[in-house]
Amino acid sequence: MSTITRLDSGPRMSQAVVNNGTIYLAGQVGTADASITEQTQDILKKIDALLERTGSDKHHMLQAVIWLSDMKHFAEMNAVWDAWVEEGSTPARACGEAKLATPSFDVEIIVTAAVKG
Amino acid sequence: MSTITRLDSGPRMSQAVVNNGTIYLAGQVGTADASITEQTQDILKKIDALLERTGSDKHHMLQAVIWLSDMKHFAEMNAVWDAWVEEGSTPARACGEAKLATPSFDVEIIVTAAVKG
Amino acid sequence: MSTITRLDSGPRMSQAVVNNGTIYLAGQVGTADASITEQTQDILKKIDALLERTGSDKHHMLQAVIWLSDMKHFAEMNAVWDAWVEEGSTPARACGEAKLATPSFDVEIIVTAAVKG
Repeated sequence: MSTITRLDSGPRMSQAVVNNGTIYLAGQVGTADASITEQTQDILKKIDALLERTGSDKHHMLQAVIWLSDMKHFAEMNAVWDAWVEEGSTPARACGEAKLATPSFDVEIIVTAAVKG
Repeated sequence: MSTITRLDSGPRMSQAVVNNGTIYLAGQVGTADASITEQTQDILKKIDALLERTGSDKHHMLQAVIWLSDMKHFAEMNAVWDAWVEEGSTPARACGEAKLATPSFDVEIIVTAAVKG
Repeated sequence: MSTITRLDSGPRMSQAVVNNGTIYLAGQVGTADASITEQTQDILKKIDALLERTGSDKHHMLQAVIWLSDMKHFAEMNAVWDAWVEEGSTPARACGEAKLATPSFDVEIIVTAAVKG
């Protein structure tokens, strides 16, 4: 029933895991201490790359969970997000406040996507 | 492999995304500044409606992640939740504290469900 | 399309829900007020047991979301995590700070896994 594929698989986590046509990405973070805009752009670039390598793309995202270190970054993160997603293929989304691995990170995005048909 | 269906799909997110028999709902929030009880009731009503429109119902929930703006709301949210779910069909659940999009929201629920067989 | 199986299903939640070859575990917590090391060990033991009962194991994890009550516990939790997972089968992972159900709990882990093929 399961033939699991893993990408950039390290001793702590894999950056992407694919099973049964569904892709689970690790929480992606951007460049430490960069602006919210830059961190978000970094993250979306990483997501684009991981989705491409797993036979998917941003139009096949199913769900995105976004963590912000402080909700005051909501508008700045959203401006980058809104420019990246495309109406007609936006995922289910949730966004909440959570401190991240280190105080240098302000945005983390966890994506679930489908392999392209 | 994937035929993705989206409901109430806007420029930022879709309220529901269905793929391969699995339904991913956006994080649902209630009426701003309402009581915890009312917010939770609003959310569960929205979840009922989205699940019905995607060919599912609360008895086919797989996972629910609940965010509370403050854990002091745990008991009040649970009272509404417990009255809504039915023993025998309860989902896997996790509940943690996270500030939400604006301070007017105290409860957010993210549901994954199965399309009815 | 769906034949949902539930384990340790109570009036509020099920500890595991299986559908279409995918296993969703409830957020697992450890012994109240124990050290971070012990709480994490407890959690991983519970995850091992639930995965075994659903026809899976830690090598078939797809995604793990980890909540810590305070990010200062990151290194201590990771030491236990790193000793438990095995390179080559690590899941996609995300870790953020969230207060949990009661202040006695400092670690909660939410796992998605695949039924063994």
